[in-house]
Amino acid sequence: MTLSLVADEALIPHIEPIADAARQARLQQRIDHKTKPIGALGALEPLALQLGLILRDDAPVLAEPQMVVFAADHGLAAQGVSAYPQDVTWQMVENMLAGGAAISVFARRQGLALTLVDAGVAHDFAPRPGLRVCKIGRGTRDASVEPAMTAPECRAAISAGREIVRALPGNVVLFGEMGIGNTSSASLLLAQLAGVPLAQAVGRGTGLDDSALARKRDLLARCLARHGAARTPLETLQSLGGFEIAMLCGAMLQAAHERRVIVVDGFIVGAALLVARAVAPAVVDCCVFAHCGAEAGHRAMLEVLGARPLLSLGLRLGEGSGAALAWPLVDAAARMLAEMASFDSAGVSRRDE
Amino acid sequence: MTLSLVADEALIPHIEPIADAARQARLQQRIDHKTKPIGALGALEPLALQLGLILRDDAPVLAEPQMVVFAADHGLAAQGVSAYPQDVTWQMVENMLAGGAAISVFARRQGLALTLVDAGVAHDFAPRPGLRVCKIGRGTRDASVEPAMTAPECRAAISAGREIVRALPGNVVLFGEMGIGNTSSASLLLAQLAGVPLAQAVGRGTGLDDSALARKRDLLARCLARHGAARTPLETLQSLGGFEIAMLCGAMLQAAHERRVIVVDGFIVGAALLVARAVAPAVVDCCVFAHCGAEAGHRAMLEVLGARPLLSLGLRLGEGSGAALAWPLVDAAARMLAEMASFDSAGVSRRDE
Repeated sequence: MTLSLVADEALIPHIEPIADAARQARLQQRIDHKTKPIGALGALEPLALQLGLILRDDAPVLAEPQMVVFAADHGLAAQGVSAYPQDVTWQMVENMLAGGAAISVFARRQGLALTLVDAGVAHDFAPRPGLRVCKIGRGTRDASVEPAMTAPECRAAISAGREIVRALPGNVVLFGEMGIGNTSSASLLLAQLAGVPLAQAVGRGTGLDDSALARKRDLLARCLARHGAARTPLETLQSLGGFEIAMLCGAMLQAAHERRVIVVDGFIVGAALLVARAVAPAVVDCCVFAHCGAEAGHRAMLEVLGARPLLSLGLRLGEGSGAALAWPLVDAAARMLAEMASFDSAGVSRRDE
Repeated sequence: MTLSLVADEALIPHIEPIADAARQARLQQRIDHKTKPIGALGALEPLALQLGLILRDDAPVLAEPQMVVFAADHGLAAQGVSAYPQDVTWQMVENMLAGGAAISVFARRQGLALTLVDAGVAHDFAPRPGLRVCKIGRGTRDASVEPAMTAPECRAAISAGREIVRALPGNVVLFGEMGIGNTSSASLLLAQLAGVPLAQAVGRGTGLDDSALARKRDLLARCLARHGAARTPLETLQSLGGFEIAMLCGAMLQAAHERRVIVVDGFIVGAALLVARAVAPAVVDCCVFAHCGAEAGHRAMLEVLGARPLLSLGLRLGEGSGAALAWPLVDAAARMLAEMASFDSAGVSRRDE
């Protein structure tokens, strides 16, 4: 079983670091000559630099941004790790497709193309525009009693994620997720892959009370005890992840391989990135971190990833909502680089002239 | 002189608090029934509530947002309080009009109508679309030796700000500013009106070095010593403010009087709000705070104003750049209220069902 989950080249694409000293120097000079004091645009300046490096362009234009939301069900949900019943996964996918979910509203507002991916929801969706059915199974197995996925399932999910990105237009992808129970899976991945203690990695998800939170901690400790011997990051993903998380992992790997800009949403997308980073460290170079959310382990996760998130609004919704909200900042940073005048071109005096 | 700066009804419009218990309860219920866990959209939820109260609408639609940038010169600039020469004020206004400044790029990106106002720049602009010339003078006087404005000038600036807003379409205004030396004026207003010590209220502006910062502190201490006896907020504005700051003050008063949403940019716009709030406290009810910037006194100012800013990106540019960057969050909050489905309308199960 483990053999088929080797991080071979067929599964894990090659990803180059974005570092390029010559281009970096050119980009920094370009930024510093814009009509503003040096550094005055704060976090947007290193962001603009990163965008230029990812896209290998001194005046990058972000084109046809694609929001992709991966949805799946989780065997662990049967153990009461969420405040909501499992049916909410498919109901929310329907709500997203109908235009009434937060991510529908925000993606529409921001001009983001929205694609829903059924990565493994325990429900049969009628086909329609905006929905891609790539169902690996009808929810994962219960990770407290057996591995969440088989190795072929995990492999198929990663490959499907890569294939989905390969078919997308544009040079920016924003990723979100939906899956009742998936904060549990994300907490487990954070604990297992980054060594963050469960006490810190486990939170209230979409709104557990104190006693439910305590039960969730106990259950996740049992999951870790059962699968803690998983030897590789992909085995950990297979044992403790979810179909949407595995697909996200593949999608991010493919996006970085193609040098697309990746806007990372919250805790669950971040967990998928932990896996992707473990098999291809340079994937992080292409990632822009949208926000620091309210879920307990998110701050620790961002520290592990070395991330400086753009927003800190206390969001804890998922769906890609944070990524959609951060998108205008990312685009504004690119436009600063491409569209702002320089002191010379605008005839503005420099300091000390 | 002081007589003509009495906060009489002709100068200071009546502003009602936005509080409305019945509407607030309706709005909160509406927010809580949206298809998301309660509170999951973090800071966007109280923001949506505030927008509903300002616009007296349970499903507010923000229409025709107007970015207005007030520019003026400052007598204090001759004392070397800025790293840039005074000519940069008019040069940057030209750059903004030509589309090459940060605010030009961001306003265009965000779909904000941009109006430049010459509140008192020491330069004669050729008339053109997007520019309103309301020049009160060719820069203020040097506040370290005499009051920055005469009482009639200050009054005229406030009235002009009101008149400018009165003529604008839409229900949202975003305010920015340009004026070499105006962080000094803002620091003085913060110190005088809110009692924040100069050591805390004075910063590097657009980029002073240590020795220039020390000189700026000394100079501003002399200004305060000279004008510290100003008895009323408007006398303080007259003595220590700027034409663009006085005009901003009038613009905010008028906007709140008309129950428009006001998006407050950074340190200088905030200083104008300190004055406006001193003569009409409820003006703050209509204000959304875009960001916490890198200027030293901004955090203290936001605390005085009881503000919870949306962004914290280390910006220190002014121009309204922070307000423009925060705009999509404000609009997204309104759209959440107007466009998101409820659990009932979307057929999504609630928790514990």
